[in-house]
Formats: sequence, structure tokens, C-alpha cells
Amino acid sequence: MKEALKEAREGLREGGIPIGSVLVKGGKIIGRGHNRRVQKRSQILHAEIDCLENAGRRKSYRGTVLYSTLMPCYLCAGAVVQFGIRKVIAGENFHYRGKGTAKIMRDHGVEVVILNEEECVKLMHDFVEENPELWAEDTGQG
Amino acid sequence: MKEALKEAREGLREGGIPIGSVLVKGGKIIGRGHNRRVQKRSQILHAEIDCLENAGRRKSYRGTVLYSTLMPCYLCAGAVVQFGIRKVIAGENFHYRGKGTAKIMRDHGVEVVILNEEECVKLMHDFVEENPELWAEDTGQG
Repeated sequence: MKEALKEAREGLREGGIPIGSVLVKGGKIIGRGHNRRVQKRSQILHAEIDCLENAGRRKSYRGTVLYSTLMPCYLCAGAVVQFGIRKVIAGENFHYRGKGTAKIMRDHGVEVVILNEEECVKLMHDFVEENPELWAEDTGQG
Repeated sequence: MKEALKEAREGLREGGIPIGSVLVKGGKIIGRGHNRRVQKRSQILHAEIDCLENAGRRKSYRGTVLYSTLMPCYLCAGAVVQFGIRKVIAGENFHYRGKGTAKIMRDHGVEVVILNEEECVKLMHDFVEENPELWAEDTGQG
């Protein structure tokens, strides 16, 4: 989660939304990314999507674990189920209230662990407070 | 659906997976794309994701309809729910067997129409017959 937080902070430095993600296999990071919707004027480059794209095309995700500083949204939870990732570790779920997405992943056999780490919560809290509109767009409430 | 089929055929010509998608609002196409996983060595550029990315960042998807030559997978169904698209028209669902994804979308208030148009079915049928491995990777069975 430390590495995912590094990614989130890198995103914040770039003027973006501070959510970071890493994909791990056998204790080794095989992909990393952060939300680049602002930076790339992208609709789809959520942290997890950026991370999975950076990990490259893979035939199998067996044994991989996806870390994200925030609970994955529907788009990213869909990616998890589609690609057959079996474990997701979320830094926090206060700011996404993504209980529906945890359920979808769990219903499809994914182990979902929610840490609610203070650092992850604080990073998003400060960001959302300063950028409510950008965050509303990100959560589909725009 | 004709325009989505055009996109699918364009993908096939490029050596890619023949799935196409268009996003429509008020009878006008506001985004179009096709699966470019092979062309871009991308993990995430499914037809619908390519289409949504090409439509650009939007604050609202109110009134939009997403057409796809094939039933959206979990990744793309997740995008539909996340972005608040309320209607999806799928050319066929024989080749994805994506009943789970139709259910997820419907459970979240999305109207899902399945046409099972012969042209859409045949395009995928011929492709899958000739490229079973590539298709297995696409459906997470690799």
C-alpha cells in the first residue's frame, strides 16, 4: 500500500486526482499507475485502469493482487472480475462508498480487503474538500 | 448498429478483434471506437472503452445510448454503470455469454437490449473460429 500511496502522491503533484494502484505477483510489483483523468484529459484512466494497462497484456492474472488507495469503482471492479484478479486490497472505502462494487467483486469470488488506512483516508479527504466538482465528475455525480 | 459494425470491420482490417461500439445522444454519434487490444498492445482498449475514451471526458451521460456489436464484458459493463449510461444495445450475446454483465447493468437501472443481429453474430463467429487463442485471452480464459 505504501507504493500505491506513492503513486497517489505523484498524481497529486501532477495536478491530478490522488488515487494510486499497484499490481503485485509473488511479492513483486508488476504494474503501477495512478489516476490520470486530469493529466491526460481521459475518461477512463482511473488508477487501477492505468496500473493494469501499464502491467501490459497478460494471458493470466493468477496469483496477482491489486492494491488501490481507494475502493475500486464499477469500471475498475469490472476490470478485476473480467481479468480474473482474485484479491483486491483497498486503502479505504470512505470516499467511494463503493459497497456495491465490493459486493460485485465478492459475488464473483474475489477476496476484498478494506484497510481504511489513515494516510489513504486523509489524502482523499483533503483532495475532495478542495476539489468537490472534480470529484463529483469522477464518481458519476456530475 | 450499422456504425458499430463499421467500427468492428475497421478493427478486423487492422488485424484486431472485430468488436465495434458507438455512443449516441439525441440521434447523433458523439463517440466511436473499436477493440484495439492487438493494435495498441493494450489490455484495456475494448471496443466500448475505446469508444468512451474517444467521446472525451463528460460530466454527464444523460440521454446517451451505447451500441456495441457484442454484449459488454465486466470491464465495459462496469464503465456503463459507473458513468451513468442508461441504455445499452448489444448486437449479439452468443459470443460473450455475458449474461452476468447484462444482469449487473439491469440491476443498476440500465436498459439492455439484445438484438442478436445475424451480421454481428457472423463476424464474431468467423473471427473466433480462426483465432481461438486471442479470443480466450480476451474473455479472461487465457
